[in-house]
Amino acid sequence: MLVIGELINGMYKNVRKAIKAKDADAIKRLAEAQAKAGAGMLDVNVGPASADPKGTMEWLVDTIQSVTDLPLAIDTPNLEVMEAGLKRCKRKPMLNSTTGQQDKLEAAMDLAAKYKASVIGLTMDEKGIPRDADGRNEIALRIVAAAMEKGVPSDEIYIDPLILPCNVTQQTAGIVLEAIRQCKVLADPPPKTVLGLSNVSQGTQERPLLNRTYLVMALAQGLDAAIMDPLDDALMDAMIAAELLLNKHIYCDSFLKAYRKGG
Amino acid sequence: MLVIGELINGMYKNVRKAIKAKDADAIKRLAEAQAKAGAGMLDVNVGPASADPKGTMEWLVDTIQSVTDLPLAIDTPNLEVMEAGLKRCKRKPMLNSTTGQQDKLEAAMDLAAKYKASVIGLTMDEKGIPRDADGRNEIALRIVAAAMEKGVPSDEIYIDPLILPCNVTQQTAGIVLEAIRQCKVLADPPPKTVLGLSNVSQGTQERPLLNRTYLVMALAQGLDAAIMDPLDDALMDAMIAAELLLNKHIYCDSFLKAYRKGG
Repeated sequence: MLVIGELINGMYKNVRKAIKAKDADAIKRLAEAQAKAGAGMLDVNVGPASADPKGTMEWLVDTIQSVTDLPLAIDTPNLEVMEAGLKRCKRKPMLNSTTGQQDKLEAAMDLAAKYKASVIGLTMDEKGIPRDADGRNEIALRIVAAAMEKGVPSDEIYIDPLILPCNVTQQTAGIVLEAIRQCKVLADPPPKTVLGLSNVSQGTQERPLLNRTYLVMALAQGLDAAIMDPLDDALMDAMIAAELLLNKHIYCDSFLKAYRKGG
Repeated sequence: MLVIGELINGMYKNVRKAIKAKDADAIKRLAEAQAKAGAGMLDVNVGPASADPKGTMEWLVDTIQSVTDLPLAIDTPNLEVMEAGLKRCKRKPMLNSTTGQQDKLEAAMDLAAKYKASVIGLTMDEKGIPRDADGRNEIALRIVAAAMEKGVPSDEIYIDPLILPCNVTQQTAGIVLEAIRQCKVLADPPPKTVLGLSNVSQGTQERPLLNRTYLVMALAQGLDAAIMDPLDDALMDAMIAAELLLNKHIYCDSFLKAYRKGG
């Protein structure tokens, strides 16, 4: 699966501080550490409090690309900031994210087509997040249709069925597992699926355990990608073991080491 | 899910020694420890080397029942030893196990009906273990049909789709996950599913990680029971977290403690 490193996000205090101080070394260290730990892509989010979100996004993208070849997921709800980031990417970027809201959806797909970006599509719209798996996948289908209309291939769409904190809505985790499984029949080739994994444990006292347990459950349903913390070793071990059991890597006794070496 | 404690098995050196020396205290300690750790049932297996398997089974059953009220899974391929064990059980026992081999299947179901035992049915027959999920569930259907003919309810049948060591046959883990999911449509009420969990990691160097990862994957497909080691705390934590995410227990911040206290 594709591990999208979540740590360069202005929501986090250390990143907010680095952005404010234009501390490029701090950002580079975060990029390098995530790459080394096995991330296949890095999320880039300027955070909610940025005074100059466009300039900050450009600076972050340039800074990260100065130390790693990993592709980037440009993470912002603001399409102007999005385009500033996408434009700067040296490798195929990811647009993170759009929703099923019709006007925004078309504008986002225009951008994705222009920059040949893959796209995260959140299964929500004007009316919010549907309660069940079917409702989520109705929106997913709308997102996939909008993508194909603009020439973005269906398998470059990553549907995010929106996991919510299990201490707030306990039935959602099961609904999202069902949505992941169902999503595979929406198009041919099927869209991919992604989770913002750490949402599942938000506000709980067992975050690492819940994160890794849910990731394994989602992988068993066919999950393709997750925005997550690659520096959480136990989480990465669980992911590698699950993929081994799903026959995605060839078994060897030191399969944990082999994955980390070979990617 | 139902945790069937696997530790009282003559295959293990400490148990073999206790059986030979008629060391009841050693057996009692194993029973109590598994009960305390959250087992809902205890497996009882005299092991392959027992000189008097019938007498040993009776002694084990009596010894375990002297310290715990947990029901027992009488684990033997020998129907005479099986009946000796079942007859001795104070609470509803489990017959572990039968296969799809027609002659043995009928004799086992007769015993299950006589002692009102639930039954583990292994998806193998004269021809061995089928390669795929469909083949496994064809045998499962035969087992369920034989049960119903003898008056054993379909939901007291625990189908075991036979997980094999992932270092020997790496595609089996995925096939067994599929078999678990499919098994639910075989009858109404559906049969239950069970795994001999530790088989998945036999001979590997990451046994606890592979065991707990596979258990979580199987739970996400609807697994009902596993023969496993309840003294493996990380395994139990993973199981409790998976069940919480599947909305089987009500969330509270200290859900791990709450499960262990309340069962």
